[in-house]
Amino acid sequence: MAIARQGVGPIMSQIVVHGDTVYLQGFTADDKNADIKTQTKQVLAKIDAALAEAGTDKSHLLSAQLFVSDIGLRPQMNEVWTAWIDSRNPPTRACVGVQFEGNTKVEIVVVAAKKS
Amino acid sequence: MAIARQGVGPIMSQIVVHGDTVYLQGFTADDKNADIKTQTKQVLAKIDAALAEAGTDKSHLLSAQLFVSDIGLRPQMNEVWTAWIDSRNPPTRACVGVQFEGNTKVEIVVVAAKKS
Amino acid sequence: MAIARQGVGPIMSQIVVHGDTVYLQGFTADDKNADIKTQTKQVLAKIDAALAEAGTDKSHLLSAQLFVSDIGLRPQMNEVWTAWIDSRNPPTRACVGVQFEGNTKVEIVVVAAKKS
Repeated sequence: MAIARQGVGPIMSQIVVHGDTVYLQGFTADDKNADIKTQTKQVLAKIDAALAEAGTDKSHLLSAQLFVSDIGLRPQMNEVWTAWIDSRNPPTRACVGVQFEGNTKVEIVVVAAKKS
Repeated sequence: MAIARQGVGPIMSQIVVHGDTVYLQGFTADDKNADIKTQTKQVLAKIDAALAEAGTDKSHLLSAQLFVSDIGLRPQMNEVWTAWIDSRNPPTRACVGVQFEGNTKVEIVVVAAKKS
Repeated sequence: MAIARQGVGPIMSQIVVHGDTVYLQGFTADDKNADIKTQTKQVLAKIDAALAEAGTDKSHLLSAQLFVSDIGLRPQMNEVWTAWIDSRNPPTRACVGVQFEGNTKVEIVVVAAKKS
């Protein structure tokens, strides 16, 4: 089964496609001083772009892991998340609080399917 | 490759089946004030139910991620986990301590295979 | 689709192969008192060994999750990681700080592809 890598950098690939499964790197926002809603929007924009580069889109999401710097911020993050996902085709999900560097407030890792 | 979603809610699907792979949401206990052993039992009962809904069972688990509120509680969680898994067919596993909302003590995310 | 398990222990399998996808357990170092660079080397040696047992290697990594005890140690961990990965074939990656037992400083979970 073929493996295709896109956005190959020194510590990771942004996208790895294996057969029909698309793995994306964990994305964080560029503007670390923004609030969590803005950071979440920036992360989801990067995910949209990476999914497009892989030839798929958010209606094909399979699973998502959401890491936040403070679980108390989850409701604010969820507002942006809920508005973004394809409401008929959401992925499975887990969301937990972790430690980040600096002012990163959210990191999201998704697995998606290729378009068939 | 077909994608099937079950338990579609506003922020996630409970189950996403992609080809032969079954992704489940991260499950937590309903009774957040229970101790970790009781919470783990409740989580594993939800996983059993979701696997059944997806037409598979715990002997087909591939990988598991276990998040706990306090890594010191891992031995107690493990007692329940070890009694529950199919001893000939356990998944791969990682278990780390994270921050949860309220009194949640454990969240478990599994990936399973469909029955062939 | 066939499931093969290797290194089956009381709480997990070390390796689960499902079709063309190889799941490995989260590995930690044996020497918990070592610094994070040494611990990372030990973890990556275990991953190399497990990949070999599964009939594949690090050039076939798909995704990686790196958990560290202190996100401030990430640069040191990255030195070892960057030297280890196949620079033309790195996996996707996410790295976050979590709580471990004792002096564990790093745990790494990878998903890989079988050789085709």
